[in-house]
Amino acid sequence: MNSGHTIKTTLLALVFLAFTCTSIDSLACATTPRGTGDLGVVVERENGSLLVVEHSSDQVLCRIEGLGDLSHASAVYSRDARYAYIFGRDGGLTKVDILNGTIVKRVIQGGNSIGGAISQDGSLIAVSNYVPGGVKIFNSLDLSLVADIPATIPDSTEQSKTVGLVDAPGQKFIFSLFEGASTWIADLSNPVQPKITKFEQIGKQPYDALISGDGRYYIAGLFGEDGLAMLDLWQPDKGMRRILPGYSRGHDKLPVYKMPHLEGWAVAGESIFLPAMGLHQVLVVDKNTWEESGRIELKGQPVFAIARPDGRQVWVNFAYPDNNWIQVIDVPSLQVIKTLDVGKGALHMEFTPRGEKVWISVRDKDQIKVFDTETLRLIKTLKADKPSGIFFTNRAGKIGL
Amino acid sequence: MNSGHTIKTTLLALVFLAFTCTSIDSLACATTPRGTGDLGVVVERENGSLLVVEHSSDQVLCRIEGLGDLSHASAVYSRDARYAYIFGRDGGLTKVDILNGTIVKRVIQGGNSIGGAISQDGSLIAVSNYVPGGVKIFNSLDLSLVADIPATIPDSTEQSKTVGLVDAPGQKFIFSLFEGASTWIADLSNPVQPKITKFEQIGKQPYDALISGDGRYYIAGLFGEDGLAMLDLWQPDKGMRRILPGYSRGHDKLPVYKMPHLEGWAVAGESIFLPAMGLHQVLVVDKNTWEESGRIELKGQPVFAIARPDGRQVWVNFAYPDNNWIQVIDVPSLQVIKTLDVGKGALHMEFTPRGEKVWISVRDKDQIKVFDTETLRLIKTLKADKPSGIFFTNRAGKIGL
Repeated sequence: MNSGHTIKTTLLALVFLAFTCTSIDSLACATTPRGTGDLGVVVERENGSLLVVEHSSDQVLCRIEGLGDLSHASAVYSRDARYAYIFGRDGGLTKVDILNGTIVKRVIQGGNSIGGAISQDGSLIAVSNYVPGGVKIFNSLDLSLVADIPATIPDSTEQSKTVGLVDAPGQKFIFSLFEGASTWIADLSNPVQPKITKFEQIGKQPYDALISGDGRYYIAGLFGEDGLAMLDLWQPDKGMRRILPGYSRGHDKLPVYKMPHLEGWAVAGESIFLPAMGLHQVLVVDKNTWEESGRIELKGQPVFAIARPDGRQVWVNFAYPDNNWIQVIDVPSLQVIKTLDVGKGALHMEFTPRGEKVWISVRDKDQIKVFDTETLRLIKTLKADKPSGIFFTNRAGKIGL
Repeated sequence: MNSGHTIKTTLLALVFLAFTCTSIDSLACATTPRGTGDLGVVVERENGSLLVVEHSSDQVLCRIEGLGDLSHASAVYSRDARYAYIFGRDGGLTKVDILNGTIVKRVIQGGNSIGGAISQDGSLIAVSNYVPGGVKIFNSLDLSLVADIPATIPDSTEQSKTVGLVDAPGQKFIFSLFEGASTWIADLSNPVQPKITKFEQIGKQPYDALISGDGRYYIAGLFGEDGLAMLDLWQPDKGMRRILPGYSRGHDKLPVYKMPHLEGWAVAGESIFLPAMGLHQVLVVDKNTWEESGRIELKGQPVFAIARPDGRQVWVNFAYPDNNWIQVIDVPSLQVIKTLDVGKGALHMEFTPRGEKVWISVRDKDQIKVFDTETLRLIKTLKADKPSGIFFTNRAGKIGL
């Protein structure tokens, strides 16, 4: 056997490998250039791994391992939709290259963290921490520390847990202080010198928050009292005001199995759909008055209520013991038009960018189920190891995601 | 010189070439994998060429030539944000690979065309034609013809020019018949058998149309009479209704230099901003009632009025002889907060996905100017040959774009 033959054989073997590596345990993701507009990641929480997925033909492309504790993990994307930043529960911040399926950089930035955000221009990553509290700002290229914002509780020297961290237009981050009963706006126009605007006494124990899709309204949920606190970022001088005083009404009647997620609120038509706390209901809120206009009875305690991108439907999942159900609400009629039994542990839903499909992670079945949102039929089932969060790359271009 | 040396020299030359080919006339675009979330194309109308651009660091990557007559050309993107479909005035439909800067396929599908759309699921491309009229549907992979929808004028055997073609949720395309005074919904759920719903006598000579960002409202502008025709796609049984009867009020007083583009309407806060016809004004319309709530005086006859993605500002450009101006409206106060002289032939504006920057093509200066939308300052000028339309890849994930 001459050396020319050996080279030829090796090349053939490599070509063969490139075309047959379809196991999700293979290390290499894409080996050739491809678009990143239809990619995403699925969090496998037990293993500390991610699946890189593609939603044009609904496939798993590869698995990336070694991301630590991924319970409650979330992700944001770089402007070019190539890199995902994963916020782990263990304080880990990991930058992942989804094109080639590798970890670019990983830092342990805190002791216990609960999510993050990317700045409007894509240059900064913010992470909110339970321990030691506060918010840290990193350079999105190399994850070097740019700024550290301690969240000191008013009239105290103690640090507060920070929650509900989102990005907002004008290179701002907004977050709330659980023990500090405050919401802060951090303007990072000059990244090494954050300019902080504080709103105090917004209500007891803000535990989560959301920002509207246009980046105008920041709304914090309150654990310690009834109602929500809202800030109109177009009129910050008016301060935060309380809305929906009856939001938690009746939550003493039933045990709250899981606090509903506010990020999952649905703006659809002229209404906002909010998961009720501890009740088998979704609240309908009039977008113009911020007042409750109705309630829809459901199968269980809602966790996420998410609008299809065109706002015509709202999909709802539920807390234990009803977490096998998904219900679909038709927005014009406010009726439940479908109840799906997808299997225990239906944790997350993610719509494709234009809304023709929805991916649902079903943890206890180790599956991702893909539904057609027009026919409401199952169109594909994918394997995944205890999947939870699903994040598609079109989030890269969206305010507050 | 031995052959090993020759190979080494050639390799070094190739490496050198790869790193120095920054001329925009170089044939090769990206040679290595990269994300496509921050890419776009700029139409160079005189040359029949496109620039592939990147808006993270605001650069031109390469030029693609041979696209025919690109006056009034527009573009849509594949789901994966890798391929652009360019609709030329000469009936040409060209599929372009923006990652490697090549033409994948080009067909002349009609004699004279005026724009197109991509279906919700990305599988179909629709093109509307002036000559011979009607709408043709192509497979997005290979541009093979899937369906041909003749637009026969009611009570006639003649074909109508089709205008205002957009995509809508549920695998639908919507368009209007200029001579036919109609709007048609084509449901392509079964692509070889389009299901057509017709709305007749909507008003004389619809000349352009738009669909709201949520895919719910389709609004056609009328050339032959005053006002606009609107269809609520959530209630198609209610038919089309006339709105804004005073829309063209006063357009006899001034010559209309250019029909305003409806695609450029701006939804911001509770208002919609529409370029007035023939007047130096933008109309403010209440989104809840569809009635006019005010008018803002401007420098010239507006062509496009486009909202920054967060809806806080509306940017306006103008028809000749005022096409060197750009004006910025602050939405809460309805005041013009900036008037910019960017140079003659300011034809198009495109915001980056989260709105921190806007690109403006300035035809007569052979430039693209990039502005920071917070400081309203020029941050970069790029060279381009008679640039017109600018299209960024985040359109891939948006209904109606």
